[in-house]
Amino acid sequence: MPERARKDEGGEFDIIRELFAPLSKGAEGAFNLADDVAQLASSDYVVTKDLMVEGVHFLKSEPLDLVARKLIRVNLSDLAAKGARPVGYFLGCVWPSAAKRQDVELFAKGLAADQELFRIRLYGGDTTKHKIAAGPLTLSATFFGQPPRQGIVRREGAAAGDDLYVTGTIGDAGLGIAALRKAEKFGAAEREVLVRRYQTPEPRLTLGGALPGLASAAIDVSDGLIADAGHLAEIAGLAIEINASGIPRSPAAQAWLSKQEDANTALGRLATFGDDYEILFAAPQARRRAVAMASNVSKTPVARIGLFARGKGVKLLSGDGSEIALYSRGYDHFRS
Amino acid sequence: MPERARKDEGGEFDIIRELFAPLSKGAEGAFNLADDVAQLASSDYVVTKDLMVEGVHFLKSEPLDLVARKLIRVNLSDLAAKGARPVGYFLGCVWPSAAKRQDVELFAKGLAADQELFRIRLYGGDTTKHKIAAGPLTLSATFFGQPPRQGIVRREGAAAGDDLYVTGTIGDAGLGIAALRKAEKFGAAEREVLVRRYQTPEPRLTLGGALPGLASAAIDVSDGLIADAGHLAEIAGLAIEINASGIPRSPAAQAWLSKQEDANTALGRLATFGDDYEILFAAPQARRRAVAMASNVSKTPVARIGLFARGKGVKLLSGDGSEIALYSRGYDHFRS
Repeated sequence: MPERARKDEGGEFDIIRELFAPLSKGAEGAFNLADDVAQLASSDYVVTKDLMVEGVHFLKSEPLDLVARKLIRVNLSDLAAKGARPVGYFLGCVWPSAAKRQDVELFAKGLAADQELFRIRLYGGDTTKHKIAAGPLTLSATFFGQPPRQGIVRREGAAAGDDLYVTGTIGDAGLGIAALRKAEKFGAAEREVLVRRYQTPEPRLTLGGALPGLASAAIDVSDGLIADAGHLAEIAGLAIEINASGIPRSPAAQAWLSKQEDANTALGRLATFGDDYEILFAAPQARRRAVAMASNVSKTPVARIGLFARGKGVKLLSGDGSEIALYSRGYDHFRS
Repeated sequence: MPERARKDEGGEFDIIRELFAPLSKGAEGAFNLADDVAQLASSDYVVTKDLMVEGVHFLKSEPLDLVARKLIRVNLSDLAAKGARPVGYFLGCVWPSAAKRQDVELFAKGLAADQELFRIRLYGGDTTKHKIAAGPLTLSATFFGQPPRQGIVRREGAAAGDDLYVTGTIGDAGLGIAALRKAEKFGAAEREVLVRRYQTPEPRLTLGGALPGLASAAIDVSDGLIADAGHLAEIAGLAIEINASGIPRSPAAQAWLSKQEDANTALGRLATFGDDYEILFAAPQARRRAVAMASNVSKTPVARIGLFARGKGVKLLSGDGSEIALYSRGYDHFRS
């Protein structure tokens, strides 16, 4: 287009060569990012794609290395919930037109750190700029991995009577956003923990690797515990009953909860915040010991929080068995 | 996040179920888009990823079915230049928050039309909205295909003395944008041809399929003929000399050219516009007859336009052998 920027030294190609090509080192078939395609060797692959948009999935004020790490982790979380082993990814970045080289450098530094940690590599992608100076940084990643021998764990597959489990703790990321937005107040130590949980979620790859053959269904918690439980319930054609007090909470979330006027409303909020990136899974009751063993071996906390039953929908139950009303069921990008 | 839209009927999940899931019909391992991942059967794969951003790669005024078709075609063009056979794709869409369901419907209709035409399927993806009402529609697609038996045609591989060829005609898409922007005037028939060339480029899959074993290097022309020739030259460590008058032109481009004051400057513009999505490839001189045969069999016009030589850089030569000065070498998203 006439107004397009023009090719020159220091531009898109240098950025790719200098900042991104090093991230493809060791990625066979990535051609050092110097071709238009990558070639993947013959294998089964599990593929997932997640977008992250400034102002929607992260705040403009967040450091770009952490944004990069989150992009990696939310995608790895999808693979973890399926029991897949991550291999690599393709990356698409649309930068604000005001973005500077050091922004891209910081972003690439974050990618490099998590690539090292999770032993994954960059295989290709595309980089461009918005026409607008502040045009929101928009990130798109397509991750691929190898499925487990026993086959991936699907969303569907839960049966009536199956237990519902979740890893880690729920609600921290939502409180972390509230802390960043100054919508809630926390002590410095708690604030740090909560914000870290929001900015750098921990994909549960080790526990995920133990789920095939054990779990009857699984999903990662991104939209919110209740909403994602709803996905499992709907596709199984069943209802889920969740015991609110059994939903695992971090000490920081517990401290927050103890200060809330209405405990049930607060429990409901924790269960609908989203961004937890824990694994929510179903398993037959006969496998309770096997689940406990998988939790031990993978050093990943797992809590049994509910039950699949005939019917439909997700019920969040308080200690006396009454249903807790929910203000929302989770996140939907397509409603306003 | 607190300001997030909330899950509800008629939202993101309905859009996926009603508009996108039908596009995955027959895509084995796509799970009807009802899981977080897709599973691809064991095979070699060639993968490419291209972004398209409103205001950068297409205009807000363009019909969304055509934008969808262009997204498919620019990615297929990458696969075509490598000799790969397209299979399917993953799609990421970030919509303006003001987008309506009928916008998504029109977009999906365009996808469906080209899926049918090119026999490809949707395997997965992600859909979200900008926080901003007019936030630019941002599209990201990851396409995969099967490599040719002889192996893909790489960017590198051209030797000194190799011929340089290009398919189709060059410069039409750039004139099409100029027509849309009213920067240049055309007759109604010419305008239609040029705009169509810009909006729905023709991926050269049939000719591309004949290139493995024939071409020594190939790239598709997206940044502009000169810029993309520059990529082939640089990676080969060679120079390229292009005969400007030999660059194939459509009747509409020829009519435009004949009205320009300085023919050489105008030829230079045609060669740097970009968005042509033709295949630019190198082949040894000994293969001229084989190239002509591939052109005949695939019913794809192929023109021999230049030569690889020792040295570096791309020279555009006029009829008398003098070098034509270029205002720009093509498109770079990372310069302003």
